[in-house]
This record gives sequence, structure tokens and C-alpha cells, in this order.
Amino acid sequence: MMDTAAFLDACRALLGEANTISDEAAMAPYLRDWRGRFTGRALAVLRPADTGQVAAIVKLCAEARIPIVPQGGNTGLVLGSVPDASGRAVVLSLARMQKVRQVDPVNRTMTVDAGVILQRAQQAAAEQGCLFPLSLAAEGSCTIGGNLSTNAGGTGVLRYGNTRELCLGLEVVTPQGEVWSGLRGLRKDNTGYDLRDLFIGAEGTLGIITAAVLKLYPQPKASVTALAALESPHAALRLLSILQDHCGASLTGFELMSAFCLQLVARHFPALPQPLAGRHAQYALLELSSSESESHAAALLERALGVALGEGVAQDAVVASSAAQSRGLWHLREHIPLAQAADGKNIKHDISLPVSSIAEFIAGTEPKLQAAFPGCQLVCFGHLGDGNLHFNVAPPPGVANEEFLHSQEAVNRVVHDAVAAFGGSISAEHGIGALKRDELARYKSPVELNLMRAIKNALDPLGLMNPGKIL
Amino acid sequence: MMDTAAFLDACRALLGEANTISDEAAMAPYLRDWRGRFTGRALAVLRPADTGQVAAIVKLCAEARIPIVPQGGNTGLVLGSVPDASGRAVVLSLARMQKVRQVDPVNRTMTVDAGVILQRAQQAAAEQGCLFPLSLAAEGSCTIGGNLSTNAGGTGVLRYGNTRELCLGLEVVTPQGEVWSGLRGLRKDNTGYDLRDLFIGAEGTLGIITAAVLKLYPQPKASVTALAALESPHAALRLLSILQDHCGASLTGFELMSAFCLQLVARHFPALPQPLAGRHAQYALLELSSSESESHAAALLERALGVALGEGVAQDAVVASSAAQSRGLWHLREHIPLAQAADGKNIKHDISLPVSSIAEFIAGTEPKLQAAFPGCQLVCFGHLGDGNLHFNVAPPPGVANEEFLHSQEAVNRVVHDAVAAFGGSISAEHGIGALKRDELARYKSPVELNLMRAIKNALDPLGLMNPGKIL
Repeated sequence: MMDTAAFLDACRALLGEANTISDEAAMAPYLRDWRGRFTGRALAVLRPADTGQVAAIVKLCAEARIPIVPQGGNTGLVLGSVPDASGRAVVLSLARMQKVRQVDPVNRTMTVDAGVILQRAQQAAAEQGCLFPLSLAAEGSCTIGGNLSTNAGGTGVLRYGNTRELCLGLEVVTPQGEVWSGLRGLRKDNTGYDLRDLFIGAEGTLGIITAAVLKLYPQPKASVTALAALESPHAALRLLSILQDHCGASLTGFELMSAFCLQLVARHFPALPQPLAGRHAQYALLELSSSESESHAAALLERALGVALGEGVAQDAVVASSAAQSRGLWHLREHIPLAQAADGKNIKHDISLPVSSIAEFIAGTEPKLQAAFPGCQLVCFGHLGDGNLHFNVAPPPGVANEEFLHSQEAVNRVVHDAVAAFGGSISAEHGIGALKRDELARYKSPVELNLMRAIKNALDPLGLMNPGKIL
Repeated sequence: MMDTAAFLDACRALLGEANTISDEAAMAPYLRDWRGRFTGRALAVLRPADTGQVAAIVKLCAEARIPIVPQGGNTGLVLGSVPDASGRAVVLSLARMQKVRQVDPVNRTMTVDAGVILQRAQQAAAEQGCLFPLSLAAEGSCTIGGNLSTNAGGTGVLRYGNTRELCLGLEVVTPQGEVWSGLRGLRKDNTGYDLRDLFIGAEGTLGIITAAVLKLYPQPKASVTALAALESPHAALRLLSILQDHCGASLTGFELMSAFCLQLVARHFPALPQPLAGRHAQYALLELSSSESESHAAALLERALGVALGEGVAQDAVVASSAAQSRGLWHLREHIPLAQAADGKNIKHDISLPVSSIAEFIAGTEPKLQAAFPGCQLVCFGHLGDGNLHFNVAPPPGVANEEFLHSQEAVNRVVHDAVAAFGGSISAEHGIGALKRDELARYKSPVELNLMRAIKNALDPLGLMNPGKIL
């Protein structure tokens, strides 16, 4: 077996000094997680330039039995892209692999390296008159490889699906250092097992995604945004149904925000205008897109909102009358996490439920939290159309945030037990990483865990691919 | 190890005499494939009533080392649901498992047993005001379990995706006879490996799908159909782009039909009206659906067709002015396979390509076929919007169909080599089964085949699940 010194020499020979980083200070940004909760250690940070170098590194790691932590933009929220504290692993950063290999507007596909930053991918599509609809808060920093490995969600899922649904083909370096060239730009392909979807969402534990063929869509001609005031989550569900029935695929956004969320935003970002604020329990941010025109989108939205107001489903509503007003409404939604951060740490849950159970879930779970942690404050918002809630729990007034974090385990138990009872998911869009590994083991059936372990052992028998994540 | 007689006794005790069929005549319909090209043999046909009985049978089979061929409606086209000639296997028919377990119109999901016939599933959704958009020729006979196991395509893929994209959760009996309860009705769920998509399209070689949660959509208010006449496949691609840009997700159908296809239909079904026929090289059947109204759909379609005619992309077009006329246009498309069958056997290829390569593929491959098989006749039609062509080759006039079938291997080589050169798929929507197993081995890379084998061996180490299919 190759020893560590020989391994590092071989890496330097392959990648050059500049891309074989072992200096502690230079490694630091690769070892600390996005939220700054954990800093791991590593033998080195390796920065290959292309797929061939990734494959060569993986072969060296297999020879030297060195664990590999693949890393994209390192913006993950579940400690999936940072190494553990052992210092045995290398971080394999895909950040230098930034080629947009091809944009094909007729096939409506784009082939990109894993290290391409999401925003750059969006731009490359737009330059050819197409839309790459994946959109999320970290889009200026996160990479396509990370989006795929975590099956990222975001605000466009209602209409366009998760990252999984936006990918047609992959190139992957296997744990043996071989290259699977599955960069197919096909809408239909029934030739054997769906390896693509196995690697998507596997968080780098089964291999390293080095490139992908992504689906593009026609650019909508116009989008119109509205804010509706509602008396309850139940009313929000009825509004969602009305909008889906009237607008079909034109409905491209449906975000729920509780009054408390908007109060937090008002407290920390008082300059943001808040139409309708202060008098209602819940708010829905709606977005309609049209392949025809802005007036078509606006008329369709006004008609559907008219029905909702007429039936008493919505209490009030305002339709943005300009692109600037639309952006202003989205800013409200986007500033909720920022307002939370300014307010101090809270206990976060990224959950999903059958859409039809959401009102009942909220109504049942909030009292349980109040009973166990009197005075705690629920920061509940999210992608209602996808059944995805960010169901965060802040301390009671007067209790220090850091102190409240000691209750994290107990708070998780209340929330996740309720999620499980409704057939929901304890990680809707953030993944498992190292952070939720124990939770996964708790809530998955032994049959499902055994199937996952069998696949992991079959593809990565040495257990070197992102160890300690997921399983 | 349990012997065969004891195995059959145990099956009878479990399922009853009536559902443990070993009489040759009674077994016959389960052993013959849909196109009547092959009849296999079996030890018995077993008809469990529920998931528990499926699991019990699989355990018995594991004990007695008896291979299992799962079967739904037995409408597959690649010998995937019939046993081989050895007579060692049992056929496990899901046909008795026909419960629609739940329809949830708010979550837009439906939970059904694997044996539910597709048309029944469509009806159950429609009864709740929802659309289950999977639609294909065999829908009156095929089952949801079969649709999932083969990842069926059909005419709705352009807008709604393949069966894979229409499934949120599965219940599966593993090769060990355990039940994986993955019946989750969630739009977002990032908790570990995507087992669902691994079982979908695996053709029963990794386990037996016993139930599924399917996605539903709002029923469109209206659909309008049109027929456009075109001078070439290249013009069809331009028309597709124009329609996608103008109509977005409202475009729900785009089928290409060559003049020769419509001539075949005219010859064998002279009563079917054929607007525009006889003077053009290619035809596109278009369908637009609207969540608003029929007049909206018609206006949108007419506007887009006006652009196409104005730019010289389409040579002529007719928009159906009634539901009956729309059905008439679809009948033309649906009668192509029937006309082919009436004309005698031909050599079929179910291929897909990047949409942008289709014109070049047809232009390059037809001369190669003519050079190798002078006078052969191409029956080329299909789901152009998905890049999926049924690229069938009929004998030269005067050559007997049965005689031409002797050239099948050589014809396949010309077509599939060209498909591979364009990065296409040799099985777009029909799957591999036993029929295309050798073709798969020829065109897949060793890396991909090894990944598939590793998964197969990990999940089904005894190799009892639908042996001889895919791998």
C-alpha cells in the first residue's frame, strides 16, 4: 500500500504544487462549513483541472486507502462537503472545473462541468434564449456538481422540479477511478438501470459527478408576482388548488410566510416595504409566468385571485404592477433567512409533507412545541406548493439563543416525530450529510437502510467516498 | 433446500388452487408475448392477492431457488414479462392486485396497486377532477406496475415526462421477500439514495413493485389539435422550437409522421379522413392544452402556426375545429402501427436521439439502409418532441416480409450504429427485456455494464429476479 508521503508526492506530480494544498491557512476555507458550525481537518486539498485528473486522484486514493470528500461551492447546510476531524481525508475540490462544454438550444440542453457555478449556468442558458430554472439562495456560490449531489430544490420546484428532474445525463468518476460517460442528452432512454438518479442526491458517497447534461426550457415572456393575505395555512392550501386549477403550469411560485416571519423581516430590515402586513395570520407569495405576454400573466393571475377573494379564501391581495414591485415581494421572502440569522441562531428543520397534510401538521405540532418549550417562537415559511416547510423554532423571548440550542435534540424529536407520523421527510431539500445521519438511521426502516448499505458496499467496497455522510 | 413439489404445495396452501396455475392450457396466455413472437414455459403461474402474498411467494422462491418472472398486463414489446423456455421459473402475475388505495386531489397524488390497469388509473384520477397524464396504445390492458417497471413513455412525455417522472413513491418486495414501504407522496425528499428510480425501469430484475404513489395534474380545460405539412424533418424541428417558444408548457403533443406512414394508413384504413395528405414529405400532429379555455388554446395555436407559415417553416396547416376532428387527427397517428401490422412484419427500432440531431440522423441513415438493402421502405414516425422515433424498416416491394426478417441483425447494425454515433438510445421507451439484451451489451460501456452488474448482484445475489432480462 502506498504511504501518505508517496501519495502526496504523486498528487503534486499530477496537479502541481499550487493545486495540492496542505498549508493549514490555505486549507481553512475548504474545511469550515457554510454556517460556520464545524471545522474539519484534512491531509490536503486537491484541485484537479479536469475529469482525467479526478480519475487519477481517485485511483491514488484507492491505492493509499485515503478517504475523499468531494466539494463544490461548499455551501451545503448539513456538513456534507467538509471532512471530519480525523485529518485522514483529502478534500477534492471541483472548483477549477468550470467549462460550459455545450449549449444546444434546439435540444434544450446544456453540458457543463461540475464546478460551474449555478449563476453562470443560468447565464449561459439565457445567452442562448433558454431558461435553466434551478434557483436558490446560494446560486452565486454553489456549483452544479453540488446541486446534483444534494438534489437541490429552491423556488422553481413547483413548476420545474428538483435538480434531479433537470438532469438528463452525467459523467461520474467511480470509486475505482473509472469514468462513466453517461452524458446523454435524451428525453427518453430505457436502456438498463437508472444510474443517473442513483448518483444524484448521493452526496458524493457513491462516486464523483464531474459533468452533467442539464435540461433547458423556453424563457417565459413575462412573470407577475402577487402577495395574498390569508387567515390560515388551510386557506393557503385552498388558494394553491384554485391557482393550480386556473393557471396550470403558469404557476411558477407559491411561497408561504407566517405573520411572525414578516415581523422578523420588518424588525431587521425596516426599509423593505410590506404591503398588507400586520393584519393577517399568513401570507402567500405567488408568481405566474406566461409564454405569451405580461398582460396575459397579469390577467390570469387577477382572475384566479378574484375567485379566491370571492370565495373568501384570500382576505386581501396585491398584484405587483412593475418588475421592481415583483422583486420587492421576492425580497420579503428572501430576507426571512437573513432576518433569522440577524435575530440569532434557532433550531432549523427542512421538512416536507404531503401538501394536503400541511395545515393539520402545523396545527398539531405548534401546540406540542408550546407544551414542551413554553413561549418558543415558530418561524414557519417555505415552498408550500412542494409541501416543503422551513419549520424553525426560535427561543422564547428572554431566553438566550445559545442556551436554547441545548434543547435541539428534544425539539428535533417533537418536530421529526410529527413529520414521520404524517408520512413526511426530515430533509426535503438540504440532504443528510453528517448532520442528519443519526436522524436518518432513526426514521428509515431497516429494509430501506439495508438496501442503501448494499448499494454503498457494492459500488464503494473500500468505503472511501465521503465517509460518515448519509450512512 | 426446498424441492419443487414442496414449493408448489406451499404455493397452493398460500394462494389456493385457483391462483396456483400449472395446467398448460390455463398458463398459455401468461407465457406468450404480446406480439406473438415467443412462447416460454413455466413451472406455474402464481396470482397473489396482496403485497403480503407477493412477499411470501418471493421467500418461498428464494428457499427453493426458483426464478421469478413478474408480470402485469403482459403487453411489453421486448420479451420482458414472459419466461424463457427452460420451464424452471414461475410467472408471478400482479393482475389480481387492482386496488386504487387512495386519491388525494389536494396533494395531487394517487396510491394504487401494481395490478391496476392504466385506463382505470386515468379514470380514478378524472373522477376527482385530476389528470393522470400517462397515455399509450396498450392503456386498456397494461398495468401501472408494468408501466413503472419499463418506465413507459407514450404521447404525453413532452409535457409530463415518462412514467418515472410521474411517480413519487413505491412499495417493493425485495428479492429477499421483504417489503420496502416507500409509498411517500412527497415532492421533495432528500433522505438518502434514490431507491425509487432504481426500481423504476429495472424490469423486475431487482425486486417486484407492488404499489405506487403517482403524480396527478389539474385537468386542462381544453385541448386543440392541428396537423401541419412540412417539407423535411429539419422543418419539423424548427416548428417544434417555434411552438415551444410561443406556447411553453401548453404544448402537450408533437408527433412526426412521414408521408409514407400516412400512405400506409390510407391503404389499410381508407375510411380515415386525411387532410393535407398526398402532397408533402412530412407531417406533424400538434396538440395544445389550456388551463383557461378552448378559445385560448385555439388562438395560441393559430398564432404560433401563423408564425411558422409566415416564416415558410410549415407549408400548410389545419386546426381541428371540433373534438371529433381532433380525435380524427390522433386516429391517423394511432393507426400507423395498426397499418404496419396489416402490411406485414417489419424490423422495428425504438430509438431516441438528441432532438437537435434528428434531421441529420434521418438524412444520414436512410441512404445507408438503401445502400445495404436497396428498395427497403422506411416507416418513420414518433414523438419528435422527445427525440423518440419509431424507425421501422419494411421490405422492398416484392420481397416477402418473413424473408426480409432474416436481415434483422444486419438492419439493426446499420440503425443502431448510427444511433450510437449520434449519442442516442437503442431503446427509448420499450426497455431491454430478453430481446435487446445482446444489443445492450454491445453498445454500453464496460464501466456502465459493471455498475449495473454490481447493483444486480448486491440486491439479488441469488439471481432469481427475472433472469435473462436486461443483463
